[in-house]
Amino acid sequence: MKLLHIIKIGGNIIDDPVALGAFLKAFSAIEGHKILVHGGGKLATDLGRTLGIPQTMVDGRRITDTETLKIIVMVYAGLVNKTIVAQLQANGCNAIGLSGADGNLLSATKRNHQLIDFGWVGDVLPDNVNTELLNHLIGAGLVPVIAPVTHDGKGQLLNTNADSIASIIASVLAEAYAVSLTYCFEKDGVLRNVQEEDSIIPVLTKEQYQKLKMEGIISKGMIPKLDNAFDALDKGIEMVTICHANNLQVNSPNGKGTQLIKS
Amino acid sequence: MKLLHIIKIGGNIIDDPVALGAFLKAFSAIEGHKILVHGGGKLATDLGRTLGIPQTMVDGRRITDTETLKIIVMVYAGLVNKTIVAQLQANGCNAIGLSGADGNLLSATKRNHQLIDFGWVGDVLPDNVNTELLNHLIGAGLVPVIAPVTHDGKGQLLNTNADSIASIIASVLAEAYAVSLTYCFEKDGVLRNVQEEDSIIPVLTKEQYQKLKMEGIISKGMIPKLDNAFDALDKGIEMVTICHANNLQVNSPNGKGTQLIKS
Repeated sequence: MKLLHIIKIGGNIIDDPVALGAFLKAFSAIEGHKILVHGGGKLATDLGRTLGIPQTMVDGRRITDTETLKIIVMVYAGLVNKTIVAQLQANGCNAIGLSGADGNLLSATKRNHQLIDFGWVGDVLPDNVNTELLNHLIGAGLVPVIAPVTHDGKGQLLNTNADSIASIIASVLAEAYAVSLTYCFEKDGVLRNVQEEDSIIPVLTKEQYQKLKMEGIISKGMIPKLDNAFDALDKGIEMVTICHANNLQVNSPNGKGTQLIKS
Repeated sequence: MKLLHIIKIGGNIIDDPVALGAFLKAFSAIEGHKILVHGGGKLATDLGRTLGIPQTMVDGRRITDTETLKIIVMVYAGLVNKTIVAQLQANGCNAIGLSGADGNLLSATKRNHQLIDFGWVGDVLPDNVNTELLNHLIGAGLVPVIAPVTHDGKGQLLNTNADSIASIIASVLAEAYAVSLTYCFEKDGVLRNVQEEDSIIPVLTKEQYQKLKMEGIISKGMIPKLDNAFDALDKGIEMVTICHANNLQVNSPNGKGTQLIKS
């Protein structure tokens, strides 16, 4: 099977032009098939504040009313996506930016939560990934750069978590490729103590993760990311790594960061 | 040669959800290969005003400083492009939204005007159109929806006139397709008297156009559009039509609107 690297970039890296530029250089240097999934950083929150549209987060998820959705689409699918694509093109990486609506890449179902109305937030199921389109683009030598915006197939755009998108695309493509999934963010990996930057857990099994979660040792913000990552591992992905955006070195599995393994 | 319809939509239609919806229904109903090029309407100007970034127009062109470029990219390549794509998908039209940076579709050169600094404005030459990518997407049954944002290949995004993009893509693709180019806007065609909505000129040759331009009969805003359209006609395009967005009927050349012909 051909190797496919799926990299998720998010958090503070996107807000920092120097860090983003260095990350995109490293990404461009990866040989072979690859996909980049990005979040939106704080730009959307900042724009919302400037426009007088207050942003509400519940459990790390953004409540997405109609005006907030416009901001999400403008910032994530517009400014962030096209800025990344233009920089990758300058690096000689033939990137093509996509939202989930483009070519019907990712259709989603509006979240129907019992207690919280998340607004225009959508969840993607494995059947909602257009693998034919991804195979077609990758086969043509293009590098998909995916913004965390999906659609419901009825004309409605939806805000969708980028970690989940990376995980679900990775698990679906694991049928045809040997998939390596890497979550890049502003920490050096999963930390045993969030206050100690060098307390990286180099290897983490699902059992160890469950135990650390129960003990309250793994911090709240990491839980959705790790849940997504272990889900992906359960679905046949070869390798899942969580590392600092500065340490993107997909060809050295013994590099810095946390390696997730099944058991 | 296979027929290819290239449609430009712009102006007030994009700002009017009902008119845009009706236009997109008509566009979706066009059979065979097609490309949509869109402008941005007044949304960018409105967002600039809300954000306290005043917008300056010179001869109908927007002076694009760094902050204005961000607005252009957010609104044109983000909100407008993805809203159109999601609606086309709902109509069963397999649209894929693209800026000029995506897949290196359109590279451009920053405008270097002797008298006016237009800022981050780019002009596209025929050699800058990635026809291979367009052929590849069209051949896969996808419908490119192109936002008026290009890049310089060095990481810089540029604001580019949508009429020019439609004209240049049409002229380049005329080598491989029988291209019909249609400019849709909020008037019924080229008017002999801008105050009289029914003073449509049904057929216009280049000679007649030059004469009407000299006489000051054709209004200022129409001149760049018509210059682009006649340029395209010179470059082997089969048919150029200028019509109201409500009257998009590509299969009836005798429909409403102004038909441009060589002589």
